[in-house]
Amino acid sequence: MFKKILIANRGEIALRVIRTCKEMGIKTVAVYSTADAESLHVRFADEAVCIGPAPSNLSYLKISNIIAAAEITNADAIHPGYGFLSENAKFSKICDEHDIKFIGASPEMISKMGDKATAKATMRAAGVPCVPGSEGILKDYKECLKLAKEIGFPVMLKATAGGGGKGMRAVWKEEDLEPAWESARKEAEASFGNDGMYMEKLIEEPRHIEIQVVGDSSGKACHLSERDCSVQRRHQKLTEETPSPFMTDTLREKMGEAAVKAAEFIKYEGAGTVEFLVDKHRNFYFMEMNTRIQVEHPITEQVIDYDLIREQILVAAGVPISGKNYFPQLHSIECRINAEDPYHNFRPSPGKITNLHAPGGHGVRIDTHVYSGYIIPPNYDSMIAKLITTAQTREEAINKMKRALDEFVIEGIKTTIPFHRQLMDHPDYIEGNYTTKFMEDFKMKPMEE
Amino acid sequence: MFKKILIANRGEIALRVIRTCKEMGIKTVAVYSTADAESLHVRFADEAVCIGPAPSNLSYLKISNIIAAAEITNADAIHPGYGFLSENAKFSKICDEHDIKFIGASPEMISKMGDKATAKATMRAAGVPCVPGSEGILKDYKECLKLAKEIGFPVMLKATAGGGGKGMRAVWKEEDLEPAWESARKEAEASFGNDGMYMEKLIEEPRHIEIQVVGDSSGKACHLSERDCSVQRRHQKLTEETPSPFMTDTLREKMGEAAVKAAEFIKYEGAGTVEFLVDKHRNFYFMEMNTRIQVEHPITEQVIDYDLIREQILVAAGVPISGKNYFPQLHSIECRINAEDPYHNFRPSPGKITNLHAPGGHGVRIDTHVYSGYIIPPNYDSMIAKLITTAQTREEAINKMKRALDEFVIEGIKTTIPFHRQLMDHPDYIEGNYTTKFMEDFKMKPMEE
Repeated sequence: MFKKILIANRGEIALRVIRTCKEMGIKTVAVYSTADAESLHVRFADEAVCIGPAPSNLSYLKISNIIAAAEITNADAIHPGYGFLSENAKFSKICDEHDIKFIGASPEMISKMGDKATAKATMRAAGVPCVPGSEGILKDYKECLKLAKEIGFPVMLKATAGGGGKGMRAVWKEEDLEPAWESARKEAEASFGNDGMYMEKLIEEPRHIEIQVVGDSSGKACHLSERDCSVQRRHQKLTEETPSPFMTDTLREKMGEAAVKAAEFIKYEGAGTVEFLVDKHRNFYFMEMNTRIQVEHPITEQVIDYDLIREQILVAAGVPISGKNYFPQLHSIECRINAEDPYHNFRPSPGKITNLHAPGGHGVRIDTHVYSGYIIPPNYDSMIAKLITTAQTREEAINKMKRALDEFVIEGIKTTIPFHRQLMDHPDYIEGNYTTKFMEDFKMKPMEE
Repeated sequence: MFKKILIANRGEIALRVIRTCKEMGIKTVAVYSTADAESLHVRFADEAVCIGPAPSNLSYLKISNIIAAAEITNADAIHPGYGFLSENAKFSKICDEHDIKFIGASPEMISKMGDKATAKATMRAAGVPCVPGSEGILKDYKECLKLAKEIGFPVMLKATAGGGGKGMRAVWKEEDLEPAWESARKEAEASFGNDGMYMEKLIEEPRHIEIQVVGDSSGKACHLSERDCSVQRRHQKLTEETPSPFMTDTLREKMGEAAVKAAEFIKYEGAGTVEFLVDKHRNFYFMEMNTRIQVEHPITEQVIDYDLIREQILVAAGVPISGKNYFPQLHSIECRINAEDPYHNFRPSPGKITNLHAPGGHGVRIDTHVYSGYIIPPNYDSMIAKLITTAQTREEAINKMKRALDEFVIEGIKTTIPFHRQLMDHPDYIEGNYTTKFMEDFKMKPMEE
């Protein structure tokens, strides 16, 4: 087993990893930027090394400084957390070259899953369903029409150079295809100077449902069921839950099987997440694979009594997994508490936390690196805490979340606590009736006086 | 279901009950003494009524004030928590008379189990093993010798007027009985002016192991397995765990069966605890039954994913129980954090908490009514928080407790955190090798500088 692990990250995930290391009797090294000197991850690690100033490219992304910190402190492994260098093939390779175990995917695996086109081609080869569409750019309208008939309406036309919805058209029936093709190409040409178009099947009422997998060095993999992360704002997840209210036993079995197949096909080692889009007919399509721990991993831990960071460390140390799949025994919800003002378009709200009191009691878990008196630096992601509630049923977990949010006191800054509180009262959320489009229509009610 | 519950208690247990009520959609009324105006239980209830000054007999024990508060606020039920009026037959009866549901045992049940002699006689009748001994005072030495031979050595001779060990003798063999009888009687006569003696079998290496039971109005009962509460100081529990490290599957089955038999024999309704002494040969003897929720109930909740307060409320509202017994799926430990100085004989340390930061993360639960800036009044029990850790194995739960204790910051007062931290490192505790005598030999190591 490792003697000392350096955590190449900051904030709550750095603290999360330190906690499990402590419980396993493994020494820890925190690294930190000058802006993070007062963070709890620095305080609770056995050793801490400053690796540079606030901009991430000068500290948390600066591979040479992190490797130097590991060498100085004699760390024999590095846990990258999420974000930053966690899916950086070069970093994984450099760790290998320095005989420091990278607790994550191999450089080859990161490269393979990091490039979207390669990832999809690999998944198709593994027999995992992907969103049907063109292979690259459509030659002409004839090919466009042929393919649309093949994959079936509705379809999406997308500009290859596109972004922000420009050169993008949803087409629901054949007669609308040609006008859409013409106008989208013109728009793309005008916007990007490139009228190249590709096509994908339009996923109706899409849900973002992901499957947690763990693989070991023998090539064996298992799944730990799903997380529903459909409540997103600008592709940022806001809250997640497991089981998904949209899930059925049959679908879980099929998606779990597909995720295990994917992991075993590429001989995936470690904890990973296979993200799918699920349409209203419960067809599911591979989106991407994250070769690292996810922010929302605690809800999985809560419903199957499993420490995923511990598992990552064990697998990295060569311990084989049991291979059995895990199914949720309870219901768990996570709300990401961000230092943002939900009443003003979620604008960031860094600054000093003048008072903090966290909720507690039965079924409540909190992961946070902040405390009363802590100054949130403006340099990083705005997430300051994860509030997780767990109960026997979804209804109870929602009710528990409501009372926990009501108890949560954070003063001095604005947070997304009021947003989550309103979300938990939203009829569509309560019904489990939400897709990735949910937030497009969500409006905050005026603040209570 | 009840519309509004008044919680006739204070501190963490009042907050604990409020939390479950909120989750169930039931309104709450807090009552408080003037000394408790700033407690979280007052802040988080829907309504709060001041019921008098600090001395408990003028507030938390003042039945008329509590009933008046319930009537003013239209509460249809009262939850008594633990301590105070929770096992007061008169209070239970007065609630009945005012058509307020008492969420606890009936007056008859409280009376029956509240008197030790009656309780034991009832349990003997139910076929539950009790500590063998004399029925009342021994007539003379002849009877003493006869009984000692009957129940078998070792035996305890105890002065009926006794206390503080005076007039008490442990006798391991027959030849020592007569001298012990003579000297104990002399001592009792000298100390209390009463030389009446009785005899009990001496329980060797006793453990305090209790079984949680729940019964419903149909007379059906089930058990929720055990809690080991042997680590005690002057009969005050300091830490509890489940499963007991001393437990075997066979013993659990036997003790569970005895506890269910006891509950069903008396048609027990609600949550209750049957406390046993278990000797080194794994014989177990009924000690007493608590007809209320226990301080240490969370560890049971943690290992079987069950909300005991919710169950109390449901049963009180007439909802039948499933009747199935529950067995621990995980391991859970509770440390009672008291405002006491463990380096100075656990002397109370009330006062202002100048800084509080609670641990969090995987497997950590905290129940507390205090916060940063809270002033602990000197009038009540010194317990200010319960820290509970839960994991797949006992070793992991201990390691989790160590890291959680290390993270726990409470400044401004002394607490028992350092005691628990040392306990978790104690070889005998780690081995699960402890009895109710454990604390007699425990010495705090000097404080780290």
